[in-house]
Amino acid sequence: MGDNGRVTVGIVGASGYGGVQLVRMLCEHPNVDLVYLGGDSSAGKPYGDIYPHLAHRIDLTVEPIDIDTIASRCQVVFLGLPNGLAYKMAPQLLEKGCQVLDLSADYRLTDLNVYKDWYGGDDRDDRDVLAKAVYGLPELYRDRILETNLIACPGCYTTTSLLAIAPLLKQGLIDPDTLIIDAKSGTSGGGRQGKINLLLAEAHNSLAAYGVTSHRHTPELEQVCSDLAGHEVKVQFTPHLIPMVRGILSTVYATLRDPGLVREDLRTIYSVFYQNSPWVRVLPNGVYPQSKWACGTNLCYIGLEVDARTDRVIVMSVTDNLIKGQAGQAVQCLNLMQGLDETLGLPKLAFYP
Amino acid sequence: MGDNGRVTVGIVGASGYGGVQLVRMLCEHPNVDLVYLGGDSSAGKPYGDIYPHLAHRIDLTVEPIDIDTIASRCQVVFLGLPNGLAYKMAPQLLEKGCQVLDLSADYRLTDLNVYKDWYGGDDRDDRDVLAKAVYGLPELYRDRILETNLIACPGCYTTTSLLAIAPLLKQGLIDPDTLIIDAKSGTSGGGRQGKINLLLAEAHNSLAAYGVTSHRHTPELEQVCSDLAGHEVKVQFTPHLIPMVRGILSTVYATLRDPGLVREDLRTIYSVFYQNSPWVRVLPNGVYPQSKWACGTNLCYIGLEVDARTDRVIVMSVTDNLIKGQAGQAVQCLNLMQGLDETLGLPKLAFYP
Amino acid sequence: MGDNGRVTVGIVGASGYGGVQLVRMLCEHPNVDLVYLGGDSSAGKPYGDIYPHLAHRIDLTVEPIDIDTIASRCQVVFLGLPNGLAYKMAPQLLEKGCQVLDLSADYRLTDLNVYKDWYGGDDRDDRDVLAKAVYGLPELYRDRILETNLIACPGCYTTTSLLAIAPLLKQGLIDPDTLIIDAKSGTSGGGRQGKINLLLAEAHNSLAAYGVTSHRHTPELEQVCSDLAGHEVKVQFTPHLIPMVRGILSTVYATLRDPGLVREDLRTIYSVFYQNSPWVRVLPNGVYPQSKWACGTNLCYIGLEVDARTDRVIVMSVTDNLIKGQAGQAVQCLNLMQGLDETLGLPKLAFYP
Amino acid sequence: MGDNGRVTVGIVGASGYGGVQLVRMLCEHPNVDLVYLGGDSSAGKPYGDIYPHLAHRIDLTVEPIDIDTIASRCQVVFLGLPNGLAYKMAPQLLEKGCQVLDLSADYRLTDLNVYKDWYGGDDRDDRDVLAKAVYGLPELYRDRILETNLIACPGCYTTTSLLAIAPLLKQGLIDPDTLIIDAKSGTSGGGRQGKINLLLAEAHNSLAAYGVTSHRHTPELEQVCSDLAGHEVKVQFTPHLIPMVRGILSTVYATLRDPGLVREDLRTIYSVFYQNSPWVRVLPNGVYPQSKWACGTNLCYIGLEVDARTDRVIVMSVTDNLIKGQAGQAVQCLNLMQGLDETLGLPKLAFYP
Repeated sequence: MGDNGRVTVGIVGASGYGGVQLVRMLCEHPNVDLVYLGGDSSAGKPYGDIYPHLAHRIDLTVEPIDIDTIASRCQVVFLGLPNGLAYKMAPQLLEKGCQVLDLSADYRLTDLNVYKDWYGGDDRDDRDVLAKAVYGLPELYRDRILETNLIACPGCYTTTSLLAIAPLLKQGLIDPDTLIIDAKSGTSGGGRQGKINLLLAEAHNSLAAYGVTSHRHTPELEQVCSDLAGHEVKVQFTPHLIPMVRGILSTVYATLRDPGLVREDLRTIYSVFYQNSPWVRVLPNGVYPQSKWACGTNLCYIGLEVDARTDRVIVMSVTDNLIKGQAGQAVQCLNLMQGLDETLGLPKLAFYP
Repeated sequence: MGDNGRVTVGIVGASGYGGVQLVRMLCEHPNVDLVYLGGDSSAGKPYGDIYPHLAHRIDLTVEPIDIDTIASRCQVVFLGLPNGLAYKMAPQLLEKGCQVLDLSADYRLTDLNVYKDWYGGDDRDDRDVLAKAVYGLPELYRDRILETNLIACPGCYTTTSLLAIAPLLKQGLIDPDTLIIDAKSGTSGGGRQGKINLLLAEAHNSLAAYGVTSHRHTPELEQVCSDLAGHEVKVQFTPHLIPMVRGILSTVYATLRDPGLVREDLRTIYSVFYQNSPWVRVLPNGVYPQSKWACGTNLCYIGLEVDARTDRVIVMSVTDNLIKGQAGQAVQCLNLMQGLDETLGLPKLAFYP
Repeated sequence: MGDNGRVTVGIVGASGYGGVQLVRMLCEHPNVDLVYLGGDSSAGKPYGDIYPHLAHRIDLTVEPIDIDTIASRCQVVFLGLPNGLAYKMAPQLLEKGCQVLDLSADYRLTDLNVYKDWYGGDDRDDRDVLAKAVYGLPELYRDRILETNLIACPGCYTTTSLLAIAPLLKQGLIDPDTLIIDAKSGTSGGGRQGKINLLLAEAHNSLAAYGVTSHRHTPELEQVCSDLAGHEVKVQFTPHLIPMVRGILSTVYATLRDPGLVREDLRTIYSVFYQNSPWVRVLPNGVYPQSKWACGTNLCYIGLEVDARTDRVIVMSVTDNLIKGQAGQAVQCLNLMQGLDETLGLPKLAFYP
Repeated sequence: MGDNGRVTVGIVGASGYGGVQLVRMLCEHPNVDLVYLGGDSSAGKPYGDIYPHLAHRIDLTVEPIDIDTIASRCQVVFLGLPNGLAYKMAPQLLEKGCQVLDLSADYRLTDLNVYKDWYGGDDRDDRDVLAKAVYGLPELYRDRILETNLIACPGCYTTTSLLAIAPLLKQGLIDPDTLIIDAKSGTSGGGRQGKINLLLAEAHNSLAAYGVTSHRHTPELEQVCSDLAGHEVKVQFTPHLIPMVRGILSTVYATLRDPGLVREDLRTIYSVFYQNSPWVRVLPNGVYPQSKWACGTNLCYIGLEVDARTDRVIVMSVTDNLIKGQAGQAVQCLNLMQGLDETLGLPKLAFYP
């Protein structure tokens, strides 16, 4: 942050859905000056040509991606690039003194071999930089975020699911082997690209699972779950595509170690766990979260139920996949890295109905 | 069926979504004469006033509900009434020689005490009639359907989920205690009634669980699962409301008893199990069902996956909640009761896209 | 506004969709203290029980509607009641010194006979108060809004359509007899009430006109059009229900008086007309507005096209029906009445995608 | 048709949305043997791989496009190719004795110069073949369809709009210069291609006009309107993209020549005009068509209203854009060309709700 209490920010890869959320939020952030938008295919285009509804507010033009330009103008850089590009660019930006928040998967997995298994990149060998990256989920890693210059922003499914699970694993309340995450997401998570399966004509009025047993968010989930549990945890994760634009709901199932625990006990445990986390809301007894309640905000709403017949806890969590699940959480991390209140510049009240 | 190879059919409660599906299918059924529509609040209305798009095809007027009238005209009667009414009407119709297919919950639960726990009706005491009712899921109870005059048509969640689970339980392939059903349904399952939560403005762009641990389809699921397994089974069942009109997807999780089983083994088992069931389709390896594939048909598509990391099987099944999940299955039962091919008069090819 | 630069505000009828938008915006308004929520059927309920996603932000409880209570606490009162109630309540509030913004139709029509033709209320006879009401469309009546204590907030169709038409009529560019407004709205305009035709199962995947030649916004449109043209204008207005929650698009057709006018001429005329109107955006040549661009904002986007083959102008305007079409515009009027910048407290950047 | 009362049919270009509708209907057509599916990019693929939900019903594999193969097997050929390809292929098929139904624009415009203005193809010079083509709208050109071997299947907007307009123009009831067509379509009309604007994330929750004054269906509309009126007619046509998969609504405005005409007069005129057209339904007074009523059928529903205040008639017509607006109408033409009842093999009852 400069002496004037302001921070100069750039976005590389600003034309996708995550990018446009970032642009929107950074434009309204009281301490941020958005000074650079970079892109490949969109270089040279006024941003208002890509998103005409923003033309009255943003007069930036997308520029070619050039490290020196970026570093000379920006104190903080968001990287919104396809997997496999950030780890080539981030080290140069870090070296020139920028703080980097990467929205891709490049720095999420601490074990490079696991990364290669899921994302390829056989020749990648930047263990030094990787070791400095912090997983950008402030509710779990706030202290470490305060001290790093390189953030690996979590995936949307991961964020939503981990916030639902964390208190259970951290307190050892469940048998980790029974953990099942049935997650449901709107189609904007698939990005702004012309894929047949994301067409309205295909995805509307329909519903399906995908990536069953093989979705790339699985290792990310397991890494954090294992960290929370203190031992290796295997997660059953099944994502589904829902006919709506935005929003994620994770329905989590697990068997309680102590069958005597009731709903109110768990609500108390969750409330304490998140008492310093302004973006997580634990709902009253019997209230289950609607994904729409979170849409347009950086909030995660959590509801839970205990089934005395089966000794299971069922936790339901919702977020806006593009805000708390992506761009909003990145801004939350920026706030922390810059010593600002973590709620600054982030939307609190849902676009509802 | 009359000597002319035709059967006269009536519907009590024809103005809801299940009713309009029945009307549509019975109008196109080659052996059926639809001769009576009965209702309370809609009595006296031409059916084409309730559903103007059917006025060119249906010239019946809704009549008051009168047992003698019905019995004098109809060989088969579908009851599409709210829970708690059918058990008062069906015995009279049976006595007068009608075959009865009840779409409510009244005859689904074989144990009257369980019924009272979930649906009330404290003064109900018709164990004799109840004992004659057959659960109208032909893929599991075809033989018994052939021999009864009283069918308890299953719920939509139940149909979809049981078809996914049946081979596993019947063959003892899973640990029943691990059975979790995460089900997702379009809003037409909530009926044609002016409820706030079913408004487009509320349900659109959103997603939520409801009835967690307490949905009324739970005892129905457990009754059939227990019957299949040969011992008592407790089911974890969580329904979700999806922003679409029609379609159900059940995602079922269970731990395999034999971790050596692979996907192809299970596909073979399922294919054999359903080899004489024309309305169930087991999908090829790696193909997961889209709910839309079943919409407009009486089909159930089933896909499955085995996770060698967790020793779990994940089964996904889809149906059209108003057809295979309700009215179509009832017609399938009518076909069987009347000695007809069970595919007659039922739609085979989806409304797609 | 008090000496502290703040204004105390109440809402009567806060539980509907217009109400919840007002609540949301007033909570975030830098100069407003929201101090009262009143309602009939919801009296006694914490507002967070009605809208659980707002519970973390609003701790008001809905109170019974009592004039003295309201007047003692509120400098400004929004009335969000069904038609026919506001004209009984507003005079009492005005007398006690409140400023009143009425969201119903009660004060929109300046001719009481016209009101009675369209809305009933035969015994209504408050011409004195009615004469003081100002039509709350700041882009057309800003000066008068600055000087009144009683605002008749326009309907959503009306706002969207009039902003598209106003420059044409004001400048005498079209033959008013040729004016046709084909308007399309999301279903939230129908309110938060359990009507069958607003169910997701009914309205989804479908599209229809309604109120053809007879919609109640017609006299409101004609009153303002006549005022702009300086002589009586009859408007052809056809609303349509669109399968989405929010947003309105008005497509307006009219024959140009001067067939030599080209698109660029009209764009210039529109840009000049709205140069002091921060909430109206005239789009570049060849860009047509998406309703979604306005959703979540108080903006109206206008695009236009001239057809040299037919000498017609086609103007397309979009708004968020609940914000610029309702609650947002009311807040814009409050800003003006209170001597504040008319953009204060109002959202500028769309919820997109 | 063969001696056996059956006709062999092929489809070139079967993998798009029009193609899959054709396949579905031809499979269920009582007189048709579907014997050939041809395609370029999909050649070699089992059709059930492209549309897994049809795998249980269709065992054809897409074959390379080869004229001799097609002609040797098929009596009738549907061409579902991009514009500009059919006119090169159809003459060869006709020469070999096939009947050809072209779903592209290639044979719709009778004036080759007009075709070139709107579709290019400067070197096209097949006036002889073009002269034999008949516009495949049976309600207007039934007699000519009976006698041709080459059908130009109309566009979806055109079909829907012309059925709404035809009686007015044919009887000279309106001033043709006042004709305005405001049409609204689901996104499946845009085809099964990965375009950004057709993504669910883009098109959902939104609404916009496109092709204003310049849509390619305009010359087609004007050609038929002129033919009906007996003199040149210019049409104002504005299409809109609606957030739903299927269905079209055309709202048509025109000034009546005789202001004394009332709604009932026009209903009578329409009913007489369409008395021999089983696929057109004129709705009762005051009933306006829902697009959903036509979805899944080959029907066109028409409602109308007269505005005595403005002397205008407003006609609303709906179809399923992929059935009556495309594939169904093509099958209707096939029926006529083959001397069959024009209702054979076509769906009559809507997929509803």
